[in-house]
Amino acid sequence: MSVTQRARSASDKARRRADLLAAARGIALERSVNAVTLAAVTAAVGLHPSAVRRYFDSREEMLLELARDGWVDWRANLARILAGRRGMPADDVAEALSSSLSELPLFCDLLTHVVLSLEGAVRLERAREYKAVAAEAYDAMIDALVASASGVDRHAAHVAMKAAMSSGAFLFQLARPKDTLRELYEMEPGLARDTLDLRAQLNEVLAAVLRGLVES
Amino acid sequence: MSVTQRARSASDKARRRADLLAAARGIALERSVNAVTLAAVTAAVGLHPSAVRRYFDSREEMLLELARDGWVDWRANLARILAGRRGMPADDVAEALSSSLSELPLFCDLLTHVVLSLEGAVRLERAREYKAVAAEAYDAMIDALVASASGVDRHAAHVAMKAAMSSGAFLFQLARPKDTLRELYEMEPGLARDTLDLRAQLNEVLAAVLRGLVES
Repeated sequence: MSVTQRARSASDKARRRADLLAAARGIALERSVNAVTLAAVTAAVGLHPSAVRRYFDSREEMLLELARDGWVDWRANLARILAGRRGMPADDVAEALSSSLSELPLFCDLLTHVVLSLEGAVRLERAREYKAVAAEAYDAMIDALVASASGVDRHAAHVAMKAAMSSGAFLFQLARPKDTLRELYEMEPGLARDTLDLRAQLNEVLAAVLRGLVES
Repeated sequence: MSVTQRARSASDKARRRADLLAAARGIALERSVNAVTLAAVTAAVGLHPSAVRRYFDSREEMLLELARDGWVDWRANLARILAGRRGMPADDVAEALSSSLSELPLFCDLLTHVVLSLEGAVRLERAREYKAVAAEAYDAMIDALVASASGVDRHAAHVAMKAAMSSGAFLFQLARPKDTLRELYEMEPGLARDTLDLRAQLNEVLAAVLRGLVES
């Protein structure tokens, strides 16, 4: 079946949908989240632009679904790193959070877009679905942190997660100067200071957070 | 002189420029940063849309200038709160950072836009100018923190500032659900959890950061 023919069966439709999402993901990783447009995605899979709305309402819906998948990945990363650990000191817990998150640059990029625009831009059912998946992953991570770390109760784990999300999102953008700013840094490297190493920057902030939570 | 006539003198031009910036600020505060468009701003001051480029290259340039002013305000707020203080404990330093920042909701909103798009979108000279003002304010705040706080050296102050910027930016967006998400929260208030009080959320994260920095 040629790609321009309508995907007729349910599995064809599911596959076409998955292809579109994979293309969106590829463009976001290779370039940026802002580069993900319906035109770019449909061109990448050889679909006519007008046909995309059979699968997705908007680019925002596509991006929110990638963010939803990111939550699943973050939870899995953290579980993998914490597996079997008990009584972990603050620095190790910080390391677990910062590496689990910095392994997911696309998710870090998407976090900013989620809170800035995506969650508000999709229809109610999609927003509810995203929230449900994010909340489930988030809660599982709270449980994992409390179980693995020494001196971290649920409240402390919530603060750690908020710090991780905030810093992961913001410091990711600092680590990826675009266009004019990248040009400026090439001319005056000192201006970048130490912002370009996401993992190190994130770990510094989270180490402070975890030490502060554990000691109080 | 009617508003449709060209501003002929340098002071007229400066005043027109200030009026445009004030209008942009008003729209951003009343609605959101995304609502600041060249059309909205020129309509607010009674200028023809085509005339705005005499004063600003783009909406990004306008917004970056508001962010630049925000740095000056943040520095002033922090200086005011820290004035004359010495040997401040971690919790008080956190309180100073979180209140100085949460008093500036527009600046918190702009921080996300700055790192996401604004710095990269203006011409080189504007980017350099913004960086210079931000760096000067930032460095002054580092000095103020080191001078006022007990057990906070320059390195620790840098970590605290990064945490403050990241959390201020991200938690601000969490505290301002838009459109569909706001609708969803109205239907299911429990979904918002505790995200809607920016100052309290910010203070929680920064208290942990400062305690962690001071005790190590």
